[in-house]
Amino acid sequence: MDRTGSIACVGLDPRPDLVPPSLRGPGGPDDAAAVAAAFVELNGLLLAAIAGRCAAVKPQVACYEAYGAPGWAALADTVRLAHEAGIEVIVDGKRGDIGSTAAHYAQAMFGGAPSLGGPPLAGLGADWATVNGYLGGDNVLEFLRDDRTQGVFVLAKTSNPTSGELQDVELSTGGTVAHAVAELVHAWGNGRRGTSGLTDVGAVVGATYPEQARALRTVMPDAMFLVPGYGSQGGDAAGALAGARHDGRGVLVSSSRGVMGAWQSAPEGTDWLDASRTALDDMNAALTAAHP
Amino acid sequence: MDRTGSIACVGLDPRPDLVPPSLRGPGGPDDAAAVAAAFVELNGLLLAAIAGRCAAVKPQVACYEAYGAPGWAALADTVRLAHEAGIEVIVDGKRGDIGSTAAHYAQAMFGGAPSLGGPPLAGLGADWATVNGYLGGDNVLEFLRDDRTQGVFVLAKTSNPTSGELQDVELSTGGTVAHAVAELVHAWGNGRRGTSGLTDVGAVVGATYPEQARALRTVMPDAMFLVPGYGSQGGDAAGALAGARHDGRGVLVSSSRGVMGAWQSAPEGTDWLDASRTALDDMNAALTAAHP
Repeated sequence: MDRTGSIACVGLDPRPDLVPPSLRGPGGPDDAAAVAAAFVELNGLLLAAIAGRCAAVKPQVACYEAYGAPGWAALADTVRLAHEAGIEVIVDGKRGDIGSTAAHYAQAMFGGAPSLGGPPLAGLGADWATVNGYLGGDNVLEFLRDDRTQGVFVLAKTSNPTSGELQDVELSTGGTVAHAVAELVHAWGNGRRGTSGLTDVGAVVGATYPEQARALRTVMPDAMFLVPGYGSQGGDAAGALAGARHDGRGVLVSSSRGVMGAWQSAPEGTDWLDASRTALDDMNAALTAAHP
Repeated sequence: MDRTGSIACVGLDPRPDLVPPSLRGPGGPDDAAAVAAAFVELNGLLLAAIAGRCAAVKPQVACYEAYGAPGWAALADTVRLAHEAGIEVIVDGKRGDIGSTAAHYAQAMFGGAPSLGGPPLAGLGADWATVNGYLGGDNVLEFLRDDRTQGVFVLAKTSNPTSGELQDVELSTGGTVAHAVAELVHAWGNGRRGTSGLTDVGAVVGATYPEQARALRTVMPDAMFLVPGYGSQGGDAAGALAGARHDGRGVLVSSSRGVMGAWQSAPEGTDWLDASRTALDDMNAALTAAHP
């Protein structure tokens, strides 16, 4: 964020209908290898176009996993292309399992295999990963072992309509289930604060619930918030920044379809890459204008 | 379970050190393609040996995902081999995301793509999948769309040591976070009871917390419990059956290393498949003896 002057994160969540017509090959959307190849071409061009204009990119694992082994290879290629473009990568897989299994997920996301006792493997090479805190520290801490990665974002308050079904349930001590996760995030980050003043145990806090973001910030003063839900999910710049610290730091705002799919709502004849770049510039400007 | 007379589920969680020496090829454990090929050979032989002696098998996605695209292909091959052996498959990925993303995960697990508007894709072909309820119904119900699958198991009380950090937190209305998930599971399963008397919205309830399993059963009277933690994680047969209904139904008990890795603790010279089959027979006998 300091290097690029942007607090935007661009989601790389490709779907067949988001691939611009000019990049569509002869294979149909039921040809997994053809779809995966189109995703890599799309991502590669987009990454080159947005380099230097965003703090990070965030591929959503599900969009690749849906296409099986070719999809997984496309995800690995995407992480590599992002690094070649000088962009940090948050792999958004929201994994969560018991410790010995979490070690395998960490290996898949980051590479290496120290906790399994085997030789290192390449993995996806992610810098950060999203994780689910439902299984507790057995899961989350496995991703932080040996400092082989930049850090994790633990799901606290997610951006979706039904997130409150569990996350808003009230506790006997006051607060909500999301608060309980926030307290765990704060505890897991204890002693892990870097020179930025933030820890490497961050939290996912959706742009669509700004009041809760403000409340959760008091519980996690030193956590980076990854803020999805901006744009197509209905969150605006003010909502996305609700969880910022008093010093203005600590929020990374993510938009997926709003940037990758910008060509779909651009005027006829607009180059798709220009549409994406413009959408990202507009997002940066809106976030700067709304910054506290 | 009715067809085989067994309530055992065999975990297919391969690791390089669990591959019997006779199946190890010339590639080392840092050669992802060689490891993946060994996993498929191991699983294929094991599946043929245990067919008819267990109700289901449960491959753990992380163990395959750690080996990238070849690992993912090995997982797909494993599901196919299980079906060829006539065994139902629970793909254990514990996925959880917002609705449009969950649709991609459902596509990856089960195949098909109706909710994405595209043509059907093969996917892994799972019969059941484990899912994480933290994001609410947006996630869980996406896996039940169009009845394209047998059902899901939602994480309620997991078997690992730190599961209580969040799952045991007390609510203002009494009960715990795991109880709140159990109430959601019961609501999601409403109207979905089959001829067995059980719904297709099940719950993961670890063998290591029998008292909680009994309490959670009262909240989820019609849910199938998938019970991990038997054997190597410390759960015994009585603990594993603690969540059974009064009619004795409703629990499916899973063991992973205990069956696949049985050769490691068998007497010198024992065939590895005999060791696995014996371990499964012993597990079935222990569960039958402890059955209420």
